[in-house]
Parts: sequence; structure tokens; C-alpha cells
Amino acid sequence: MDKDLRVVIVGGVACGPKTACRLKRILPSAKITIFEKGKDISYGACGMPYYIGGVAEEIKALCDTPVGVTRDVGFFKNVKGFDVECGKEVVAINREEKTVTVKDVDSGTETKVPYDKLVLATGGKPVRPPIKGIEANGVQHFHSLNDCRKLDEQLKGGKIKKVALVGAGLIGIEMAEALIDRGLEVTVIEMFNYIIPALLDEEMGLLAGKHLKAKGVNLAMGSPVTEFVTDGNGNLTAVKTKDNEYPADLAIVAIGVQPNNELAQKAGLAIAPNRGIMVNEYGQTSDPDIYAGGNCVATNYVYPVMGRPLFTPQGSTANKEGRVIANHIAGLTEPFPGVLGTVICKAFEYNIGRTGLSERWARDLNIDVETVLWTGPDRPHYMPGSGPLAIKLIVNKKNRKLLGCQIVGPGDAAKRLDIAVTAITLGATLEQLAYLDLAYAPPYALPIDPINTAAHVLQNKLDGLAKGISPLVAKKKIDEGNVVLLDVRTPWEFEEVGLPYDVVHIPLGALRSKAQELPKDKEILAFCKLSLRGYEAQRILEEKGFDNVCFIEGGVIGWPFELRTNQ
Amino acid sequence: MDKDLRVVIVGGVACGPKTACRLKRILPSAKITIFEKGKDISYGACGMPYYIGGVAEEIKALCDTPVGVTRDVGFFKNVKGFDVECGKEVVAINREEKTVTVKDVDSGTETKVPYDKLVLATGGKPVRPPIKGIEANGVQHFHSLNDCRKLDEQLKGGKIKKVALVGAGLIGIEMAEALIDRGLEVTVIEMFNYIIPALLDEEMGLLAGKHLKAKGVNLAMGSPVTEFVTDGNGNLTAVKTKDNEYPADLAIVAIGVQPNNELAQKAGLAIAPNRGIMVNEYGQTSDPDIYAGGNCVATNYVYPVMGRPLFTPQGSTANKEGRVIANHIAGLTEPFPGVLGTVICKAFEYNIGRTGLSERWARDLNIDVETVLWTGPDRPHYMPGSGPLAIKLIVNKKNRKLLGCQIVGPGDAAKRLDIAVTAITLGATLEQLAYLDLAYAPPYALPIDPINTAAHVLQNKLDGLAKGISPLVAKKKIDEGNVVLLDVRTPWEFEEVGLPYDVVHIPLGALRSKAQELPKDKEILAFCKLSLRGYEAQRILEEKGFDNVCFIEGGVIGWPFELRTNQ
Repeated sequence: MDKDLRVVIVGGVACGPKTACRLKRILPSAKITIFEKGKDISYGACGMPYYIGGVAEEIKALCDTPVGVTRDVGFFKNVKGFDVECGKEVVAINREEKTVTVKDVDSGTETKVPYDKLVLATGGKPVRPPIKGIEANGVQHFHSLNDCRKLDEQLKGGKIKKVALVGAGLIGIEMAEALIDRGLEVTVIEMFNYIIPALLDEEMGLLAGKHLKAKGVNLAMGSPVTEFVTDGNGNLTAVKTKDNEYPADLAIVAIGVQPNNELAQKAGLAIAPNRGIMVNEYGQTSDPDIYAGGNCVATNYVYPVMGRPLFTPQGSTANKEGRVIANHIAGLTEPFPGVLGTVICKAFEYNIGRTGLSERWARDLNIDVETVLWTGPDRPHYMPGSGPLAIKLIVNKKNRKLLGCQIVGPGDAAKRLDIAVTAITLGATLEQLAYLDLAYAPPYALPIDPINTAAHVLQNKLDGLAKGISPLVAKKKIDEGNVVLLDVRTPWEFEEVGLPYDVVHIPLGALRSKAQELPKDKEILAFCKLSLRGYEAQRILEEKGFDNVCFIEGGVIGWPFELRTNQ
Repeated sequence: MDKDLRVVIVGGVACGPKTACRLKRILPSAKITIFEKGKDISYGACGMPYYIGGVAEEIKALCDTPVGVTRDVGFFKNVKGFDVECGKEVVAINREEKTVTVKDVDSGTETKVPYDKLVLATGGKPVRPPIKGIEANGVQHFHSLNDCRKLDEQLKGGKIKKVALVGAGLIGIEMAEALIDRGLEVTVIEMFNYIIPALLDEEMGLLAGKHLKAKGVNLAMGSPVTEFVTDGNGNLTAVKTKDNEYPADLAIVAIGVQPNNELAQKAGLAIAPNRGIMVNEYGQTSDPDIYAGGNCVATNYVYPVMGRPLFTPQGSTANKEGRVIANHIAGLTEPFPGVLGTVICKAFEYNIGRTGLSERWARDLNIDVETVLWTGPDRPHYMPGSGPLAIKLIVNKKNRKLLGCQIVGPGDAAKRLDIAVTAITLGATLEQLAYLDLAYAPPYALPIDPINTAAHVLQNKLDGLAKGISPLVAKKKIDEGNVVLLDVRTPWEFEEVGLPYDVVHIPLGALRSKAQELPKDKEILAFCKLSLRGYEAQRILEEKGFDNVCFIEGGVIGWPFELRTNQ
């Protein structure tokens, strides 16, 4: 290896600085320069909604190390040992002579800079749909630190009252909370009929959406935006959808991110169908001296379980890719194993997360899957902080391996999600998941952790013991008629809340003696608050000779549609 | 299978009821009876410290289902479909005629009850050491619901001011918090020199112990109890150790639990060297019609990684064993894979957890291991709830597989511990742990999760890049002299707190220019607040020609001994 390797990095937000820091530690002799066309470097973009919402008090905090040192040009020079040049745009790569053309953004001057190894960390940019009026004042994105500063100023101005968030993805959901916390009227507009539709299955997205509604977010689902309506001065006044019109002083368009691939494309590097720069497992592009990482690449190295390339722009992935690239440049070959499309977001009191294959993705890949929706508390009910979770597991029927997991609710979802991530990565079967010796004490979990129990229920389904159906299937059956809904909860639970249909109410403790009141010629859908008593009802009725009984998974807590309440 | 299988279960707390509930669901025709010699059934014993501490408001809550129904005899009869008889002690098993002799505790009457399958769930009992004065009034255990009620009454009486907790295991630590919360003066007495010595490595136990001290617990470590001192009326007045004497109105002896194996032993069933009833992976004892589970068994089915049988009395294990036993009785053969000795406990603001092999256990088994102690925040510093963690990983040097993990600190330790549990169970290598696609968003984690980063540092150590030493080793080197301590933190960090020794203070950003001030003939121990800058200092100095530099893992945050503070 060249002792004084010249490394040029394009882009100074996440993958770029990570690559430089790691490389400098393992190859201290490397001469590293980062060119960043903007003014902001190494900031925590994922923290921006928390600054807008008032959780992070200073925008500066997004640029600081944990001990309060700002990661600026001087920091990288003195502490980390490499150069960062801001306001410098790399406009061309000259692969034959191994130089990049760098343009000074202010003066327009261009200079050529030689490299031995080049790293493209050009990031992504928000998708900008060709909708009428999108150029209006007040229609904007929330992607860069500048976008964040601008929005903050606008909100401080006090004239913004109503905000439309276009797209119910992660940014849309996080911003909904942030803007409600700032006292605004918020409408989330989404063309699919549930939130985070790209990543969640329908019942999970519907369930999470109910919480947003309860927190005062206006959800406008199932209808695409057709126009940003303006007044005579070109200022936004409303957002029109196929079905409706929503007054708005400001619209934030957050329907996705696409890779910044122009520089790579111009240089003739291979680009994937999803528009990301193609890289191998070491981050090398089609030119072995040029690497790429972060939101500008296509993650075409994937876990076998995922079945197809993913584009999941995530700060976590960008940072890991930076490490892999630095390693490879320094001669340490450590392949990046890929991602499971893991995401999590907080929405008011709910945690919403997913990893691996969704049921829909699995079916698209023609994988024969079984699923379960389990609901229950995350720790003993007598402990403070105890809250329910809805856990959906997706397994391959053939080998019982876990393929995916989605979790929604106020309980500790993040922990169970990360257990699922680890289990899927390592090829765990349902049986292995069911008996994991997870950490138990009342402040943290139940003796049998919720994810163990969810696995047990799915085992019971696959073993033919538990006849659970998802709430989506149950709703369809109810709408079609000719089923009996059997509520086996206690009278006080029944009084408080329930499914908004005609139901037969027999508390589980009375079911053995009152079973004969139920008809044998109709399908019976048993349910309770969660799932256990519904399942027990199914087993008791089967013992009594009923042969067409199932239970609604998730019970009342997991019911993703309207409920009957006593208010 | 016999259609009306008669199943007798001995013991009604955890494994017993779980076995019965599961069995009744999968084999509804089974006739099940639980005999419990006490009056309390199916209670959450692990919740008792939280009742004493005032976290759980009612003791009844420990016996309720999440919807508030008490799990009493009527509940099990009507809802679950089996019989529970309290005040009935099984005094003998007649294996040839397949009956048990049941004694009515009040009347003394004995009856014989036939069984097809018998399940022993007789639990454990607190170890009672033969120490002088242990029979004194005021020397007691905290094991059963009755112990809990008694203690609660005593504390309500208002005469108890000083409590000695004998044994710094899980119960001792949980009770220390509970009793401090009730306004008492608490001394924890432990013969080892750090807390939870059976399960934690020394530096982790020392680090956790510092937090207890900071919260006002008097830690009397490293000296065994020699006598419970009494007044003329046989009432406790003090606890004497080899080195000291601690005034106490009450002493709670919690030095461990041992299996209740008498019934099994009398019946000639095989007993393990650790005194647990021997069972196979289906919970069968040496008599195939007799099963045993919970705290009365020896977990002699173990993960290969553990290397030896474990006795880890845990509610989580008892419940899973109940499921396995019920399955096997009903003809579903699902082996119990064993446990990793996972435990977690809350101690004031700290979470303390461990799983798998400790470094000490691994060395006892002659496994060549490498370890790392990593410290850092669990999520971005600008997010509320962000707190540091100290994570220790233990890997097999030969195959880089994760063997164990210990975590201490106010950050979210439970999540990372459960990731480690899953990883160890599934045979993960360090490389797999390092790149897990864990869920990232600012409320939950850092872009590279702490456990990913800990794995990275350990990779760096194994790859010869990072020369980290544990604080125990560092302390030894400092005590022996002839080392230079190099503090590379910022001036304001240095001002606030530090190691209580002569140190050279050069902030990392100045190290490249000031390196020549350091001697080349002495070993340099670099450190920072956490570990990263210490490691970077090592790399910078190596680049400058220093060949005897290492860094202290965990930095100031992970230093388990006294610190210099500016107060």
C-alpha cells in the first residue's frame, strides 16, 4: 500500500466523515480531504424533527460530539487529522488521470485534485413529484439542515397555522408529532390508505394511524395530491387531493428520497435500476478505485432473506458502509452483510418499527409464509411504564425461519425489534425465538417475553392448535355476514369498549357452562382484549364439539378499525 | 394417549400453574390437579421488591392477570379448567402404584391420589447458612409472599430503622433500592469485594457498586458475616463480619436459593450434584412418568457455550420449562434448549445485566477469550433519557464467537443484553454482531448502536489495531508505577473529574503537536471520558514512533474505583 495514500471523499454529512475518521485511525499516514458543497458537515439529520419539536434545545447539538465539541473543520483537522473543505462541489471525475474537478461554489473557480482512492458519499435528495403548484411559496422539503433552519424561522414567524405533510412515511410521521408539539394544525396526506405503507403491512399501519388520530393529527389517507393551490402571489393556500382540499399555509413534501447519482453517472460508473450507485460488498463501484456509500448507493448486497436489492436511506447504514469502505481502502477486507430494512420511529406515545420481510413483500416473492399478530403488555401491569405492544411475526412455513417482524405500541418495541433483527440475521427458527433466555425482571419484561410469546402463538398456529385470523380477515368475514362474534372478556371490560357489531358476550369463565347457547351452524369468531382468552375460547368450544371456531388475533387492543366506546 | 389423563402437579407458584394452563389448552380432556402446601398460588414473586419499595401499590397486583382478575382457585377452575388445592402437601410419591400421598396441612389427614403423569414444581428455598445467631428475631429471608407480607408489616410498624442485607446478589440489590425508598438505613454485606459476584466480573460489579454507594447504600464488601448479635431477648441488634460490626434492627439473608428436592430424593429420583432434580430436555426425571421444572431442577440441558450445568433460579426459566413439560405430556416433543444464565436487575437509576459466560467462567473452562469494556451514551446526547452504558463483551479468540455480555449503567441496557442473548444463542461471530442492522432513530439508539460499536472495538483489539486494557489491569499497572497516564480530554472535562493520580493532560486536538513532550521510555496509558479518544491517542502516538502505548477501556466513565472530583 502507498504510504501516503491520497484519499478524496465527496460529501461531508454521514458516510463521508465516518469513512475519513475510521481510515485515519487504521491508516494514520493517509492524506484525506473531504469536499462538501454545502456549509454544514457531519450533522445528525435524523435529529432535525426533534429540534423542530423542541426536544433538542439547540440546532448546534446536532453537530456536536457527546462531550459538546462541535464537529467543524477545525475539529476534523486537529482531533481527527484530515481536511474538510466546505463550499467545494466536485463536478467531475476524471477516472483515467485519477483526478476530480472541484468547483468553488462562491467564486466558480475550478481546480483539479488528484486521488489514489475516491469515495462518493453524495447522499440523497427528496423526491419532487411533478404536481401542479409544487413551485409555490410554502411548498418545501425537510431534508437538509438548511431546510430545518428555514422551517424553524417560518414557525417562529408565527404566521403558519396549518401544515400539510405530504407522505405518511417516517419523516411525515416524525414531523407530525413535532408540529403538533409546536401547536400547529397538522394534516398528513397519503395516497395509500395507511401510514408508512412502503414498510408496514396494512393492519399495522392502520393500528399506528389510530394513535396519530387520537393525538390530533388529521389523517387524509387513500387519495393522492393533485395540486398545491396558491393565491395570486404564488403563496400556498391549500393542498388538493383527488377527493378533497385541505387549507394549508405550508406543505412539506416527504414522499421519499432518491440517490444523488449524477456525478457517478457522468463518470460512467454502473448505476442500479433503483438509481443507486452500484457497489460490491466492500463499497467498490464498477471502478475499483472509486467507492460509494450512504444514501447514494443501492444496497445490492442483501441478506438472502430479503430476496431483492433494497434502497433504505438510513444514517445507520451510511455509517456502517463508511467503516467498510475505510477498512477496504486500508487493506482490511470485511464485507458488509447488507441490511434488513430495519426502521423505527416514535409517534407521540407509540413506537413503530419493522425489520425483514413484510407479509406483502414475502407474498410478492412467492414465499409461503405464516404470520401472527400478538398483543399484550410489555412488562407486568403493576410496573410503571408498562404498555401494550402489537407484534407481528412473519415466518417461512417451509423451514419455520423468522423472516420479518413489525411492532406497534406504547410498550418497549425497540428491544423486541432488535431481538428480531438479530434472530433474522442469524437464521433463527421460530423454535429458537420461542425459547430465547431473554432478560427478565419486572422493570423490563414478563417472565416469558412478549416476543417469546408471539413465537409460541405462531407455533400453535403452525401446529394446528391455534386458529387465529388477522383483524383484516376478521373484518372481511364480519362484513360478509354469517359469522357469530363471541366476546369472552369480563363484564367490566365489555362495558368499557368493544367491537362495534352485534356480539355474543360470554365471559371465558362461563363459557364451559354456556357453550350450548352458541349456534353450531355458523362460524364463530372469538375474541378478548388481547388474544389468549380468544384462543382458549376456541379450544374450549372445540372440546364441546364446535368445529368452526377461530379467534381474532390482537383482540380489541389490536383492532385496527373503529371501536365502540362508552364515552 | 389416555383420553382422560390424570395429571398431578406439586407446587402452585410458577412452573406448576404454567404447566397446567398450557396442558389444558393443548389437551382439554386432561384431568389436572395442583397441590400447593401454602395458601398463595400463582404470584409474581419477582415483583415483591417492587411492592416493598412502593412501586407496585397493592400486593394483590402480584396475583392478578393484566385485566385485574385474581388468579385464585376459582379462576383456575372456571377460566382455565383445572383444580388447585391449597394447604395440601404432597409428602410421598409411590412410583410403583403411581400415587402421591397428600397431607392436609391443617388436619394432618393423608390421602392417596393416583396420577398418570406427575409434575414436580416444588421450587427452591433460601440458603440458610449456619451462622451464630441466625435464629434471632429479626433475621429473616425474603423468598415467599408470606415473607413479603411480614416484612411489610414490620416496616409499617415504624420501629425498623437500620436493615442489613446479607448477600449482594439480585435480591440484595433490589431490596437495597426498595428499602432506601422506604427511608431506611441500608447496609449490604457481601463476602466478595463486589456486588453480584456470582454473575458479574469484578470491574462490572465494582462499577455497579459505585452507583449504589452514590445512592446512599452502605456497602460492606469483602468480609463474611460471622455472627448475628442479639440483645438479652434474642432480638437482633447488629451483624458482625470478620472486620466490622453493623448495627441492625433487621437482617435479610439472601445469599442464594437451593432446590427443594426432598420429595424427589425420597422417591429415589436422580439428583444432580448441584442438588437440583435431574431432568432431560423434556423435563422428565429419571422416572419418565414424573416431570420436574422450575427452581427445583438442575438445568443440566445447557447451551454448548455454557460448558457446564447451571442452577439459575428464574421465573422466566420456570415458565418456559412448564410449557416444555406440558408439551411433552401432550405428545408434542419440543426440547428445552437451556439457558444462558441471563439476569437483569434495576438498582436505582442503573440497569445491571449479564448473559452467557463471564470472563471468569470462561477462564475456568480454559477457553481462550478476549474481552472489551466499552462505554458511551445509548442514544444521541440531545435526546431526553440519553444515558451512558458500560458494555463488556467476551468472545472466543479461536472462532470470534460471542460467549458473554455484561452491561451496567443508566442507559437502555436491557435491549443490548437481549441482542447479546439472541446473538450468543444463535452462535454469532463478532463480525455478525458488528453489522447487525439494528433499529435506529434518535429516541432509541445511535446510528451505530452501542453494541455494534463495542463489537467494533473488540474487532480492533483482535486485529491488533486497538491496544485496550481493562481498568483492573490499568489499576495494577498504576499501582506498580513506571507508567505515564495521559488524559486526552478537553480542559473543561479535565477540570470537572478525573483519575486520582498524576496525569499528563494533553487534549487530543493538541496531541499531534505536543507528542514530543511525552517520554518514550515509559509505557503510556491514554484515556478519555469513554474510550474512543484514548484509542485515537494510541494510534496518533504510534504514528509518531511511540511503541509502548495502550488505552484504558471505558475511560473515566468506566473507571470502577474512586475518581478525583472537583467538589
